[in-house]
Amino acid sequence: MMHLLQVSDLSKAEIEVLIARALDFKQAKTYPTYPHISVINVFYEKSTRTHLSFALAQQNLGCKTLDLNPERSAEGKGEAMLDTLSTVHAMGVQIAVMRHAEDDIFDKILPQVPSTLSLINAGSGKRAHPTQALLDMMTIIELGLKPKDIKIAVVGDVLHSRVAHSFSTICSTMGVGELVFAAPEVWLPASMPYGQVTSEVKSALQDADIVMTLRVQKERMVDARHQGLDAYCITEDALNLASPNVHVLHPGPMNRGIEIDSAVADGPKSCILEQVTNGVYMRMAVLEHLIKASHAASA
Amino acid sequence: MMHLLQVSDLSKAEIEVLIARALDFKQAKTYPTYPHISVINVFYEKSTRTHLSFALAQQNLGCKTLDLNPERSAEGKGEAMLDTLSTVHAMGVQIAVMRHAEDDIFDKILPQVPSTLSLINAGSGKRAHPTQALLDMMTIIELGLKPKDIKIAVVGDVLHSRVAHSFSTICSTMGVGELVFAAPEVWLPASMPYGQVTSEVKSALQDADIVMTLRVQKERMVDARHQGLDAYCITEDALNLASPNVHVLHPGPMNRGIEIDSAVADGPKSCILEQVTNGVYMRMAVLEHLIKASHAASA
Amino acid sequence: MMHLLQVSDLSKAEIEVLIARALDFKQAKTYPTYPHISVINVFYEKSTRTHLSFALAQQNLGCKTLDLNPERSAEGKGEAMLDTLSTVHAMGVQIAVMRHAEDDIFDKILPQVPSTLSLINAGSGKRAHPTQALLDMMTIIELGLKPKDIKIAVVGDVLHSRVAHSFSTICSTMGVGELVFAAPEVWLPASMPYGQVTSEVKSALQDADIVMTLRVQKERMVDARHQGLDAYCITEDALNLASPNVHVLHPGPMNRGIEIDSAVADGPKSCILEQVTNGVYMRMAVLEHLIKASHAASA
Repeated sequence: MMHLLQVSDLSKAEIEVLIARALDFKQAKTYPTYPHISVINVFYEKSTRTHLSFALAQQNLGCKTLDLNPERSAEGKGEAMLDTLSTVHAMGVQIAVMRHAEDDIFDKILPQVPSTLSLINAGSGKRAHPTQALLDMMTIIELGLKPKDIKIAVVGDVLHSRVAHSFSTICSTMGVGELVFAAPEVWLPASMPYGQVTSEVKSALQDADIVMTLRVQKERMVDARHQGLDAYCITEDALNLASPNVHVLHPGPMNRGIEIDSAVADGPKSCILEQVTNGVYMRMAVLEHLIKASHAASA
Repeated sequence: MMHLLQVSDLSKAEIEVLIARALDFKQAKTYPTYPHISVINVFYEKSTRTHLSFALAQQNLGCKTLDLNPERSAEGKGEAMLDTLSTVHAMGVQIAVMRHAEDDIFDKILPQVPSTLSLINAGSGKRAHPTQALLDMMTIIELGLKPKDIKIAVVGDVLHSRVAHSFSTICSTMGVGELVFAAPEVWLPASMPYGQVTSEVKSALQDADIVMTLRVQKERMVDARHQGLDAYCITEDALNLASPNVHVLHPGPMNRGIEIDSAVADGPKSCILEQVTNGVYMRMAVLEHLIKASHAASA
Repeated sequence: MMHLLQVSDLSKAEIEVLIARALDFKQAKTYPTYPHISVINVFYEKSTRTHLSFALAQQNLGCKTLDLNPERSAEGKGEAMLDTLSTVHAMGVQIAVMRHAEDDIFDKILPQVPSTLSLINAGSGKRAHPTQALLDMMTIIELGLKPKDIKIAVVGDVLHSRVAHSFSTICSTMGVGELVFAAPEVWLPASMPYGQVTSEVKSALQDADIVMTLRVQKERMVDARHQGLDAYCITEDALNLASPNVHVLHPGPMNRGIEIDSAVADGPKSCILEQVTNGVYMRMAVLEHLIKASHAASA
């Protein structure tokens, strides 16, 4: 494995190896260190938690870490971006963690990226956020649930959510029994890679073992308000439709009172902070996997 | 000790222990390291020197360091801030160093902060800057002065100064013999936690062993100009009123020619750069104290 | 050697020592570390690659690293800048890497900089960029070329280029056989410290062993357009005038299609990424040199 660009790059076995390694890290008192590895975080779109999570994962593994926070959008386009990646690679950077607003950015640049620079997609456009999908699945597996036996409901702005799309793919690979995406019509895609789509939130929540809520962009709320956005907010009442043992996920940051009630977010069914914890360990697992697969000589 | 939020959290004995440890660090060739400790600096108000001083203290102690520089004020409010602190704690961060514009921010959030996250106040509102007070007192003690035997004059914009307020409290705890705050009427509070207040700068300076000048915010100068702001500038002439062995402190950054003359700032009576030096060692002492008291298992 | 402010501070022997050490680092599997050394990067002008290159060099040598990115231009002026340098030095910082827009900034501040703080010029005004000149000469020497035997053509906006000016000086010290600067009249200085100036780009390129192209500032292109700027773009055709073994340098970032064609930039004669690689090793050599010469006690 040279890169991690999308969930569909990973086999079921690879996903299981990454989850097992992340769970190992979670138990460990100390970690192996890779002091000869230099990683750069290149965020063409702002991110607080994903950025911090990767930064901490890199420090936990003893890597050298650089940050590039482009200020002008021109720097995130075509040749300028490729020259930046070639330049940092020439400096000795082996891995670039990159976030970008465009859906197909990695497809476009990959043929021209230096062949010994690994790329990790930290979120691209509205379609891919593979480390988020991995940490979400890790959190489900850690609960002792078997993917083939469970029903998962994903509720919120499905249309614009890279989290939802990457999660759909990982659920397909892992063979999740039942997956339903529920959203107001204005946020409902025609289909998803895997799972059903519906505007009937109650049927989606019915007997669900996992309920994943999605962040609503504030600027998009106006579109959904007249379609009864409140019905898609996960409250304690709404959860009564789900399995008594339901667990709730949210990729963060939350709009409390919009897509999720505080009583749920902070309640006993919430795994939201566990997802954050798992995120650091999963990113350590991904980084280590790329280091061992592709940069062993330098490590 | 779980947090350092205000000087009044500290007993005289605790202050003496912190000062002794900081003076130890100042003599040391090497420092103990705490590589399992992760610290985040969260500055909701800009700061160059306090931020750098904490960052260096953390590196000196071998901690992992993250920085969060919020750009939108909404991020520093209520639930958003609490979710940020919960999130970074879930990532494994044990200590958050935070600066914020509101006086009572820590009182407000403390009940909801994760119970195993330590907070260090790096300056809040117009009332508290405890690590500054500690480094100021360390600088005085290091000079060989006994608090009960000395007179200290604090001159400048007392009303808006968190430095002045925290210093007042630490002087109370340490039993400083005489403490006088002098300011133009427009900047003079009705009272201080400890010490007298006066607009008579000459009587304040009379026989002072320590003169602490306060930074004047440029946007506030206009208020004070017509009240004879020049009289409150610490010049060599003004210092002639003080003890022949007087020492001058300033928390920085200085407005040379406004609250302090360059001849004084750079002269033999100035301890201003010593304060900066001591600031790093005092922050190391505070960090280590919290680590040992509250995070020993992870350290 | 206490500082590295300009190429003319260096003798030929010192340049050769630095190049040899940088080439050593390039071959090494591990590097010596200097964990007691703290370095601050103070960039009063934005820079992506020079800043990253220094940051990586500091991490490679195990130094503590701080960054100060001033946002307001007032911070880069006179007393405010000197107070910043004195303050970070008082914190324990031994080396400041500084970039500034003014030509003579280091001459102006040096008399007042703390005597045990080393300064490295990371680019000042339109006249000096000594680490760039060192990495350029390192790249030439590494090719096996002997300075006295070669012809070098430097093409582009010579007038405004600190790269060109520092390169002229290092070519003088190293005794480069023939050095020609070619630019449109509007960008042609009356003379350079060493080498000829001409607007005749073809004669400049004739039989050149090294062709260095200079970045064109987009806002200055309009001045040059009517003077036939295209003639100064280094294309494969243009290179046909040069020696068959010509090598092409560019300090980056490139304006492809303006001062250099992509076919040249990415072609077999390009040493542009090698320059980037060498930049990290040269900055390590410079840092180590200052550490050993001036900060041995603390190292």
